[in-house]
Amino acid sequence: MSLLVVGSMAFDDIETPFGKATRVVGGAGTYICYAASFFTPNIGVVSVVGEDFDMGIIADLNQRGVNTDGVQVKVGEKSFFWSGKYHLDMNTRDTLDTQLNVLADFNPVVPPAMKDAQFVLLGNLTPTVQRQVIEQMNQRPRLIAMDTMNFWMTAMPDELAKTIGMVDLLMVNDEEARQLSGEYSLVRAARKIRTMGPKYLVIKKGEHGALLFHEDNVFFAPALPLEEVFDPTGAGDTFAGGFMGYLAQHGDISFEAMRKAVIHGSAMASFCVEKFGIDRLEALKQAELTERLAQFAALVTY
Amino acid sequence: MSLLVVGSMAFDDIETPFGKATRVVGGAGTYICYAASFFTPNIGVVSVVGEDFDMGIIADLNQRGVNTDGVQVKVGEKSFFWSGKYHLDMNTRDTLDTQLNVLADFNPVVPPAMKDAQFVLLGNLTPTVQRQVIEQMNQRPRLIAMDTMNFWMTAMPDELAKTIGMVDLLMVNDEEARQLSGEYSLVRAARKIRTMGPKYLVIKKGEHGALLFHEDNVFFAPALPLEEVFDPTGAGDTFAGGFMGYLAQHGDISFEAMRKAVIHGSAMASFCVEKFGIDRLEALKQAELTERLAQFAALVTY
Repeated sequence: MSLLVVGSMAFDDIETPFGKATRVVGGAGTYICYAASFFTPNIGVVSVVGEDFDMGIIADLNQRGVNTDGVQVKVGEKSFFWSGKYHLDMNTRDTLDTQLNVLADFNPVVPPAMKDAQFVLLGNLTPTVQRQVIEQMNQRPRLIAMDTMNFWMTAMPDELAKTIGMVDLLMVNDEEARQLSGEYSLVRAARKIRTMGPKYLVIKKGEHGALLFHEDNVFFAPALPLEEVFDPTGAGDTFAGGFMGYLAQHGDISFEAMRKAVIHGSAMASFCVEKFGIDRLEALKQAELTERLAQFAALVTY
Repeated sequence: MSLLVVGSMAFDDIETPFGKATRVVGGAGTYICYAASFFTPNIGVVSVVGEDFDMGIIADLNQRGVNTDGVQVKVGEKSFFWSGKYHLDMNTRDTLDTQLNVLADFNPVVPPAMKDAQFVLLGNLTPTVQRQVIEQMNQRPRLIAMDTMNFWMTAMPDELAKTIGMVDLLMVNDEEARQLSGEYSLVRAARKIRTMGPKYLVIKKGEHGALLFHEDNVFFAPALPLEEVFDPTGAGDTFAGGFMGYLAQHGDISFEAMRKAVIHGSAMASFCVEKFGIDRLEALKQAELTERLAQFAALVTY
């Protein structure tokens, strides 16, 4: 197992200025696995779903090389559900409904075959659950990356701090970086967050791209300017999946490899937002990815 | 004369989260000339000031190779004055006071020696004044670029459309591009604006960088992530000055040259915001610019 992923697998109701979709398959774990599967066929996922989950998705992930032995299916229970509405600028959204369901008492169990993964990606979840996954590993992975969100910063800051203290790389968006650090300047925020544990920090800025910080190095990847951002749901998770998938594929955690990983993550995210949910990722061809990577190069080369 | 600039030379009162400064020398023409002078010593400026203007600035510009024969000094009158206050995010500001003074009835006169300039940069001013400058040229310059702002889009849309129809390159910020085109997506906005006349469009996104559009090509330059944006006043003008100064220096208007010009403009703007007004540009050394250009390369190279 080269990449272990923990993250939700869920249903979302999504409303954007372009339309509405109900009971769309989503969840951080789902997006991450789809994105990472374009880079490495050696992925394991730890998650939990209700008996209402779409088992066709599990089968599709298996076909893509994702081992789903760590996905618990809770009979008689319902999958995590989120409902949200995006504003015109797509950078802000209102949560209309959150039903934890199976996530309420999720006890992650890492299957033995996944306990030696060298790359671990902790999708946004309770920091306690994220930590339980780290603690089940046989040895310290080469790179542990985690995503989190503002909710945990307010709801359980001490738990969050403990988990952040155990990881190598943290991914948050700009507002979350500001909230976590208490600094408005992202450069200062990055410096402060890197004293909390992670040596690496990725700050996601949505349509404004992403920044990668490590020691005195900073790298910036733009988001591809798109005609239309149809549905931003899962873009951050897709970015994370592409990023970690790329690193796991190459087995390289140098800053040079991470620069390329940020670009690959950004390219994956640029597809994700073109349709509702995982629709675009499901249909994506390797040749389209190659072409988009060339577009990224053309966008920033001078 | 390789580069002809028209733009205000003025005083600003500025309040930012970091401090206050009064009667700071400013104005689009001033920022543009300082920035462009780092690239070409062959600049002419058309502007108007009151007798209260700081003549030391005029002398300094002359020393930097800027011909100020086109700057009218109105005895008994006062220079243009603007006062504004920035919010914490530095992307939004409130105008507290605007006193047109000498700008109220500005009749630009292009000195004969400047009428053959191949590069013309029309700083943000009444579109009528911008057009009067174009009409005084002996022949069609190779590249006419203009800046404008939302105020003119509302106050005199027809005059603005006429001037926009005469230029090769338009520079606006993201909100202005949206207002001018009626399109939220910047890709669509860019396409629509390029049907209004300009073959090239630069969309400035402040701390989020700048986009350059031409035919099917798009180029993106990030803003340098800074510890602190001390005062954003004049950053857009400084960008424009660096951009056009670079093009005039190389006499090249290929898309490849324009990519580099965007980077050089961004580098100049990254200095501008480090201090109040033109303070940082006045003190800037060529070696510092070279070093910053290397930082830009490191920021985006992968």
